[in-house]
Amino acid sequence: MKFVAAPAHLSTVSSTFEADFAARLHWSAEQDAAIEQRVQDILADVRARGDGALLEYTQRFDGLHADGMQRLTLQPDELRAAYRSLPPEQQQALSTAAERVRHYHEAQKRASGESWSYRDEDGTLLGQKVTPLDRVGIYVPGGKAAYPSSVLMNAIPAQVAGVAEIIMVVPTPQGAKNPLVLAAAHVAGVTRAYTVGGAQAIGALAYGTETIPKVDKITGPGNAYVASAKRRVFGTVGIDMIAGPSEILVLADGSTPPDWVAMDLFSQAEHDELAQSILLCPDAEYIAAVQREIDRLLPDMPRAAIIAKSLTDRGALIHTRSMQEACDISNRIAPEHLEVSSRDPHRWEPLLKHAGAIFLGAYTSESLGDYCAGPNHVLPTSGTARFSSPLGVYDFQKRSSLIEVSEQGAQTLGRIASVLAHGEGLQAHARAAEMRLK
Amino acid sequence: MKFVAAPAHLSTVSSTFEADFAARLHWSAEQDAAIEQRVQDILADVRARGDGALLEYTQRFDGLHADGMQRLTLQPDELRAAYRSLPPEQQQALSTAAERVRHYHEAQKRASGESWSYRDEDGTLLGQKVTPLDRVGIYVPGGKAAYPSSVLMNAIPAQVAGVAEIIMVVPTPQGAKNPLVLAAAHVAGVTRAYTVGGAQAIGALAYGTETIPKVDKITGPGNAYVASAKRRVFGTVGIDMIAGPSEILVLADGSTPPDWVAMDLFSQAEHDELAQSILLCPDAEYIAAVQREIDRLLPDMPRAAIIAKSLTDRGALIHTRSMQEACDISNRIAPEHLEVSSRDPHRWEPLLKHAGAIFLGAYTSESLGDYCAGPNHVLPTSGTARFSSPLGVYDFQKRSSLIEVSEQGAQTLGRIASVLAHGEGLQAHARAAEMRLK
Repeated sequence: MKFVAAPAHLSTVSSTFEADFAARLHWSAEQDAAIEQRVQDILADVRARGDGALLEYTQRFDGLHADGMQRLTLQPDELRAAYRSLPPEQQQALSTAAERVRHYHEAQKRASGESWSYRDEDGTLLGQKVTPLDRVGIYVPGGKAAYPSSVLMNAIPAQVAGVAEIIMVVPTPQGAKNPLVLAAAHVAGVTRAYTVGGAQAIGALAYGTETIPKVDKITGPGNAYVASAKRRVFGTVGIDMIAGPSEILVLADGSTPPDWVAMDLFSQAEHDELAQSILLCPDAEYIAAVQREIDRLLPDMPRAAIIAKSLTDRGALIHTRSMQEACDISNRIAPEHLEVSSRDPHRWEPLLKHAGAIFLGAYTSESLGDYCAGPNHVLPTSGTARFSSPLGVYDFQKRSSLIEVSEQGAQTLGRIASVLAHGEGLQAHARAAEMRLK
Repeated sequence: MKFVAAPAHLSTVSSTFEADFAARLHWSAEQDAAIEQRVQDILADVRARGDGALLEYTQRFDGLHADGMQRLTLQPDELRAAYRSLPPEQQQALSTAAERVRHYHEAQKRASGESWSYRDEDGTLLGQKVTPLDRVGIYVPGGKAAYPSSVLMNAIPAQVAGVAEIIMVVPTPQGAKNPLVLAAAHVAGVTRAYTVGGAQAIGALAYGTETIPKVDKITGPGNAYVASAKRRVFGTVGIDMIAGPSEILVLADGSTPPDWVAMDLFSQAEHDELAQSILLCPDAEYIAAVQREIDRLLPDMPRAAIIAKSLTDRGALIHTRSMQEACDISNRIAPEHLEVSSRDPHRWEPLLKHAGAIFLGAYTSESLGDYCAGPNHVLPTSGTARFSSPLGVYDFQKRSSLIEVSEQGAQTLGRIASVLAHGEGLQAHARAAEMRLK
């Protein structure tokens, strides 16, 4: 079968550009009422019946029968054994990737995750104490989208933050375990894993069961049931962002080999038919060259069907007036992945305000960032990079303010607090401050 | 009318302690289906009809008629005029409080909010760029809970983060404006304000109208309609936590004057009948002394009715075996406000893992922190301090990963990425890495 990848060719000088561009970008996460209701029921049942409910749903949805939670529990030695069963090349790749990811997140912790304090002249101490979460849950999808790299990207920041217990859940339909996923859990420092998934696994982590301990936060991607369950338990536990389809935006000045750029667009498109790949470039001839490379390279790709559909339905090659205009458009999109494929990427980087991750220069393919450059590959999608950040050590820490007012400090602060508290009609607040005045 | 404040007297040695303690702590934010439906309708209407819908709802819910958005808009000069209309004592208190809050948040930005990067030996650059949000919305409640201090605590971290536009919304029922709130907006650097509130104001900020610009994130407390609307627009924009009732937990070793502690318990209880005030202390006689001070001080409090109901329904004075045990119980509660009312607070502080803000020593009344010590008074409630943090500069910034792989770096990283991508069945990812190999 022959596939055709026909991304929209747009130009910013066209009078219909704004409308065409808006139509391409449009994506909306419709919530399915039937899914919502089922998830609500499953969560209530797991909360009420614990392990019993979990075993039933695992049998029903994953075709995995177990007469007790014992059979659904993976202890550290089984994770280690999975690692040792891998070919040396895969062991090496996993370990090196984990080491680089750990190194990056340690730098992140030093830069933004340490406690601090200062004292006023009157001896009053002000500061902030940064502490790790006690226990977190990591959801790892099973089946077709089982990504060991996601295990590294979720567990390592938690480990670097100092989280004492990292509980992984991963469905194993019909009992089929993915050795790379288990090996990644070993390498990333997962404490314990359970082969459960879906809304029932989220419920178990959020409320606790006889076997699975209640966690403080749940991270990791999942299908519509998992996303709905995470939304519902938010507040009882913390959650990371709910991810939409993956996206790449390539800003090109025409200096990168066009087949490299074509393959970078493919590498996003192959994830999912809803994934979005966009090229912005001021050079019309270069855009044509990229399209030729798309046509030439597509037939050899094992996932050509997905790539073709994703590029045709949601892809775009956009001819801009200038690199500057391309940067402006990128800021409007706030892409998850942003490649600056330019011979002078540092000229454009300061203009780029909103993006999950910025890949600078022709050698920085997005796929290097996905696996092993070091930064996290869990990134804000669907324009949420305007207000949110890559998953990081900070997601597995929380802060407490520290205040120690000296006797002298209480004299000045007490008078201010008293005036403002009376202004708000909160007299006990005022009195509490006034009592500390001499 | 005589009010009685009868907090539960519990003891950890009692055989019923765990059950009694759990019953006291129980609180659940039931979502009201009727409110949910109305909020959904209001948001859809504001999204569809913009200013027209906003004007209608403002007339209907706030009794405020306006023939155009002009009348609901407060420009900077009106905010400044409100400040100048205040008595000098209030001007001074607001300005000094703002200055201290700003100073603290500037230290917070230096400690955890700066960009960073490093280079590998092969020249590969890895880092993280920290940038402010472009535009944020701050919800300020009107009516009985109109707190100018909340304006400072929400707007100043945004301003320190470098947010370019800070849009405030505040309902003014029947057109009554609170000059302290407007003055606080002036002092805190609010860009522009609109006298709208409720779910309709949240919708306007999330989707934008002809007059009110769409923002990237919405923070600030509100009633059940506002909380529901914030939950619903989450994802379209960022939001802060949805706050539950306010709480204080006092750990006392018996060295603080008992009337100070009684008043500190009042200062939380006076907020709201659902607010929770708890004392943990290993000294039974001291607990009795605090109860006597509660009885003695209550009749003079203007908000005695609220205080009495809050303390009786939700308050507790808990006799513990030791300060150590008191610290353990505090960690189970993860309180919003935690006072360590001890002559040796630094002995206990390291044992306290979960709290929004920790107030050390007898002079540090929680009310000083509410108004002017410097740290933020927007804190995680209902045990969410286990996984979340005070509002801070970091809530108004987002991070983008930076990756620049050198030609040499692409050789080592490319091989690792290729192995892992093939392991995940993502061949375009592998090819994109392999194309960069020499």
